[in-house]
Amino acid sequence: MGQTVGFIGLGIMGSRMVKNVLKAGYAVRAQNRTAAKAEALKPLGATVVATPREAAAGAEVVVTMVADPPALAAVLEGPDGVFAGCRRGTLVVDMSTVDPGTSQAMAAKARALGLRYLEAPVTGGVGAAEQGTLTIMVGGSAEDFATAKSLLESMGKKVLHVGPMGRGSALKLATNLVAASIATAMAEGLVLATKAGVDPTMAAEVLAERSPLIARWGPRVLAGEFSAAFPLKHAAKDVHLALTTGRQVGVPLFAAAAVAQVQAAALAKGWGDSDQTVTIQLLEEIAGVQVRKRE
Amino acid sequence: MGQTVGFIGLGIMGSRMVKNVLKAGYAVRAQNRTAAKAEALKPLGATVVATPREAAAGAEVVVTMVADPPALAAVLEGPDGVFAGCRRGTLVVDMSTVDPGTSQAMAAKARALGLRYLEAPVTGGVGAAEQGTLTIMVGGSAEDFATAKSLLESMGKKVLHVGPMGRGSALKLATNLVAASIATAMAEGLVLATKAGVDPTMAAEVLAERSPLIARWGPRVLAGEFSAAFPLKHAAKDVHLALTTGRQVGVPLFAAAAVAQVQAAALAKGWGDSDQTVTIQLLEEIAGVQVRKRE
Amino acid sequence: MGQTVGFIGLGIMGSRMVKNVLKAGYAVRAQNRTAAKAEALKPLGATVVATPREAAAGAEVVVTMVADPPALAAVLEGPDGVFAGCRRGTLVVDMSTVDPGTSQAMAAKARALGLRYLEAPVTGGVGAAEQGTLTIMVGGSAEDFATAKSLLESMGKKVLHVGPMGRGSALKLATNLVAASIATAMAEGLVLATKAGVDPTMAAEVLAERSPLIARWGPRVLAGEFSAAFPLKHAAKDVHLALTTGRQVGVPLFAAAAVAQVQAAALAKGWGDSDQTVTIQLLEEIAGVQVRKRE
Amino acid sequence: MGQTVGFIGLGIMGSRMVKNVLKAGYAVRAQNRTAAKAEALKPLGATVVATPREAAAGAEVVVTMVADPPALAAVLEGPDGVFAGCRRGTLVVDMSTVDPGTSQAMAAKARALGLRYLEAPVTGGVGAAEQGTLTIMVGGSAEDFATAKSLLESMGKKVLHVGPMGRGSALKLATNLVAASIATAMAEGLVLATKAGVDPTMAAEVLAERSPLIARWGPRVLAGEFSAAFPLKHAAKDVHLALTTGRQVGVPLFAAAAVAQVQAAALAKGWGDSDQTVTIQLLEEIAGVQVRKRE
Repeated sequence: MGQTVGFIGLGIMGSRMVKNVLKAGYAVRAQNRTAAKAEALKPLGATVVATPREAAAGAEVVVTMVADPPALAAVLEGPDGVFAGCRRGTLVVDMSTVDPGTSQAMAAKARALGLRYLEAPVTGGVGAAEQGTLTIMVGGSAEDFATAKSLLESMGKKVLHVGPMGRGSALKLATNLVAASIATAMAEGLVLATKAGVDPTMAAEVLAERSPLIARWGPRVLAGEFSAAFPLKHAAKDVHLALTTGRQVGVPLFAAAAVAQVQAAALAKGWGDSDQTVTIQLLEEIAGVQVRKRE
Repeated sequence: MGQTVGFIGLGIMGSRMVKNVLKAGYAVRAQNRTAAKAEALKPLGATVVATPREAAAGAEVVVTMVADPPALAAVLEGPDGVFAGCRRGTLVVDMSTVDPGTSQAMAAKARALGLRYLEAPVTGGVGAAEQGTLTIMVGGSAEDFATAKSLLESMGKKVLHVGPMGRGSALKLATNLVAASIATAMAEGLVLATKAGVDPTMAAEVLAERSPLIARWGPRVLAGEFSAAFPLKHAAKDVHLALTTGRQVGVPLFAAAAVAQVQAAALAKGWGDSDQTVTIQLLEEIAGVQVRKRE
Repeated sequence: MGQTVGFIGLGIMGSRMVKNVLKAGYAVRAQNRTAAKAEALKPLGATVVATPREAAAGAEVVVTMVADPPALAAVLEGPDGVFAGCRRGTLVVDMSTVDPGTSQAMAAKARALGLRYLEAPVTGGVGAAEQGTLTIMVGGSAEDFATAKSLLESMGKKVLHVGPMGRGSALKLATNLVAASIATAMAEGLVLATKAGVDPTMAAEVLAERSPLIARWGPRVLAGEFSAAFPLKHAAKDVHLALTTGRQVGVPLFAAAAVAQVQAAALAKGWGDSDQTVTIQLLEEIAGVQVRKRE
Repeated sequence: MGQTVGFIGLGIMGSRMVKNVLKAGYAVRAQNRTAAKAEALKPLGATVVATPREAAAGAEVVVTMVADPPALAAVLEGPDGVFAGCRRGTLVVDMSTVDPGTSQAMAAKARALGLRYLEAPVTGGVGAAEQGTLTIMVGGSAEDFATAKSLLESMGKKVLHVGPMGRGSALKLATNLVAASIATAMAEGLVLATKAGVDPTMAAEVLAERSPLIARWGPRVLAGEFSAAFPLKHAAKDVHLALTTGRQVGVPLFAAAAVAQVQAAALAKGWGDSDQTVTIQLLEEIAGVQVRKRE
């Protein structure tokens, strides 16, 4: 406690996670690419700063929560980045979802600068971010894990030390691959049943038994509600990273590769900012059927 | 009550379902291709008969629970089949998983003989069959549904009238398609994580959050335990029927098609009688990694 | 020569093949579901008859060239079908594309009636049908092959005895699987290059080096010309039969399964009567790009 | 003529291409990572140098022909790289197969250093490299294309100016995507036919009609001969780059994604240095059948 935490990246997830860090009593130096989002944290006691470099200045731990590997490279390595602002010995904790290779490369660069580094991607979605009940999958050394543990527990209920650097990312990619596969399976099942004449509400109810994700997603899909809980562009990026990792470590992912192309088709349609469940619209368009409940 | 029910097909599911029918007080005329399984029902009060035709004789309702469309055709249309043994007005209730086209064709043949017909495929697995808590998806007329309702409620907790003939099958195929997709996603996620260095037990624990199926399957996969809860050959048949239905009604199923090929590969390996989760072994062999816990 | 041949099925292929049979001096009894097509053969010396049964009457050899297994069953087994009209010892030669299982089942039924049976599917397309240069892949006994050889050589340049019943179909399905895969690969390559800014005409020219099929198809696609040389509905049926055969004999077909779903999507769009290359329109619609040359 | 050309990368393709450059009268400064390969060019008049930097020194044009984007980055940007050795105004011509994004990034870096840059990937395989009949797909400015044209014509028969930077790569990836798809289709067709009982030699002969690639590959596969004409690891890299480009420009590639996973599985088996046709062994292992001719 009393510790100072730099927190960079206040998107859908980060803006909720940082509040739990503040509640737990940490001093927070918050930064976001679009500054407006950071301003909202001032009343909660955060110090709002303009650059990742400033967020890192004077912090014992710096958390990053950004969109993808290029965004991570920018906030860490950029001229006004974290690496430029840290003093030696600072612990950088990247909570973004990237691939093991990216984590390993960034960790190596951090170590070369005398910094410590953990990857700590999360699962659980917006609700768990809000309530501080995320599952957090940490890769890195046991010592660094011990340092970050209390901080991470302010954001998550299940904080796992998965193994050395890269293992946290690998598990995160595996779990997001499963979620994206379930989203596609739900879409295929719902559109098939609906086109075959089944009432979509009844179909969604039966499919909901297969996964709590479907129980959560089904009613939103029936309502034609695709505002992003987890944007398709991020979900597609994660499946892409899983496939990339599969190539590298030697695991074919036959079904995930098909999922990735359904996502690519939906991205080509311009739906990247909608929720990942929006892929169902692709099948609806091709099949000429509407799962959405009609008034 | 007091009603006589012919029950044909006493496999993994049927042998459990029929016990709940007996408990509910129905007189049961039970038949199975391999007679030994039927004998076990005698102490419970069932009359054991040698052919589907005899099972149907004198029954008000005849239930069939067999492997696939050819098996159904055999028990219904064969020389010693149900159609040969029924009196006019008998209600045939097929609880097997077949495709909508098969249900529609059989129903038409039944009607031409003056019989009534329902399709009533189930979901929930062995446990739900045992406890009488299956979900039962019924296709056919409202009148026939009303006739069968009490009987079906002896076997299931959620007995849904999905719509006209074919709709019950369509929904059943959709839900099995989702289950098979989740099995494949679990396999891909577990093998990817394991090959990337994650402890498989931890990976299975995290993936279990995605679906109660994974929560149930994960520990069995880790134990290298593939005795069939739902044999791969049946799971593969259902995905095949879902794809066939998709072709017929006009719904592409990109990911399910990949799932079907993973299953086809596992069938080619000779694993059809193992549980559907056995497909993970295909990925393990290709990737050169073992998810199974080592002693 | 002087031999009488019943010829049933005068579609895009059959109507061209029968002309070469007539030219070779056979007496032909021609029949087609829609009679008008048969009429056109009268000036060439054919006897036009109303039913498959009549076509078979008095013929030493009966050729069938129809759309799919159900159509074959209808012309052979129907009340006015070939089996009803043949005298014992007649040789039935099915030149349709069906699966090995269908050929084997039909051959067994023919044998039971005292008939002889060959399967003899063809490849080469409309041009080769016209010029009598088809490749013909025959399954059945060596003796029956010897009987049919001259007749088949009137239609084809390469007449192969592939092996026992079912082998001809299997090879035919394999070759159509390859053609459909090439059609899909061309579509993916052309749309990718075009969306990335390459002139489609130049792209088609370079891709044409990969296959004479692409050399033939490319200019038609650039012209937006999809009148059927080989209708999508037949091409999709053949890939489906290949996948079915793969399941049965134990061969996973990962890429063909994806091809089948691209076809299923194009069928769902209502393009079944267009040429199989029409699947490119699916990718064009999703990608929002036109490969077709603009004036 | 009389012009000096730096030539970097003397692998399977480069070692053949450079000989045609020498024959056309250019002064060549040749370099390869493993020096032995360069030595063989001395008798033909090449100057052999130790580093890309030295190859570039004094050259008007520098050709690079290496494995993939990281290898290209190394020879261009490394401390002893081309960029370090060029004088302003030198034309760098990259003939490797990379993705459009890599070409565009490298071209931008070259321009920033006052250099000129073309991408000029090739197709045609080892034979065409040897005979100087490659197809060369050039991306870059018309002026730079004009400068390089004679040099490129010493190596290729069809030298196309595809468009601005990135277009050459896009077309090259499309054509390799088609080739890899044909390799997979051949494997699926051959294994399916063989498992179904067709003689593989006859099957290969019939499938050869579909593509000159199959005509060339078939006999090698039958001979169990997989020494690399085009190594799987490169073919897989190209399909991966095509998929990456598809994601970026918005084109789903459903079948190519399945091809990529078949390749990934074969890579996982350790077959990356064998010819890309080696993927057939994956299907053979799963199907338990040998396409290879038995003595």
